[in-house]
Amino acid sequence: MVPVVETEGIHIIVEASGCDADVISDPKKIERIFKDAARHAKMTVKASYFFKFMPAGVSGAVIVAESHISIHTWPEFGYAALDVYTCGDSDPEKAVDYILEKIGAKHAHVSEVKRGIREEEGTYTHTILTWEEEF
Amino acid sequence: MVPVVETEGIHIIVEASGCDADVISDPKKIERIFKDAARHAKMTVKASYFFKFMPAGVSGAVIVAESHISIHTWPEFGYAALDVYTCGDSDPEKAVDYILEKIGAKHAHVSEVKRGIREEEGTYTHTILTWEEEF
Repeated sequence: MVPVVETEGIHIIVEASGCDADVISDPKKIERIFKDAARHAKMTVKASYFFKFMPAGVSGAVIVAESHISIHTWPEFGYAALDVYTCGDSDPEKAVDYILEKIGAKHAHVSEVKRGIREEEGTYTHTILTWEEEF
Repeated sequence: MVPVVETEGIHIIVEASGCDADVISDPKKIERIFKDAARHAKMTVKASYFFKFMPAGVSGAVIVAESHISIHTWPEFGYAALDVYTCGDSDPEKAVDYILEKIGAKHAHVSEVKRGIREEEGTYTHTILTWEEEF
């Protein structure tokens, strides 16, 4: 029997402000946080890659089965652009909450994109819900 | 002199329908298309990772300096979830157009998220514009 893989997924897009510059300038710390977040959210990590870019930022991603977590940071502004995209039974909000706490975010502008929604005519679409959070 | 790195970036989120199942089920083809797309759009590839998942899909990403391109495909439904996020002088729309053509997409539901916009109070936000395309 061929398993049916659900196309629907949740993609959470976050602009995180007021983050801890020491944490978001350190690729090793970010990688540790991402792997722990993936485990908390029941995602299976397939690969990860993180690097520093000038003058101080970190860029990287964890590829999990059918989805990914990525970050691009600007420690000089306390700003991080975070994406958590998951399909299936994993819990993207749990991963987002964990990461935002660990990077010390004080404010988040969040859009939750529900992806892979099948329309009547057979095409796929997404819907978006946006909110703000203070910590 | 420390270079100033602009926080603003363009993140294009696409639900692509009617895609060529032969192409979107092949990690090697997707990787080739992504690397060519990155070159067309003047992005510098830092790392890439692609793999097949059950029953036929491909999942993967190219990490480019300060940004990324990622895809998750469901060949059995002709559906691909594509993300192109870029900062700086690269041209994300060029990369998206190139990829959609190469994977044979017939329809795209697109949201362009302008990320890393600094607000007066020092927090960061994003704006979203959504449209449909037929090919």
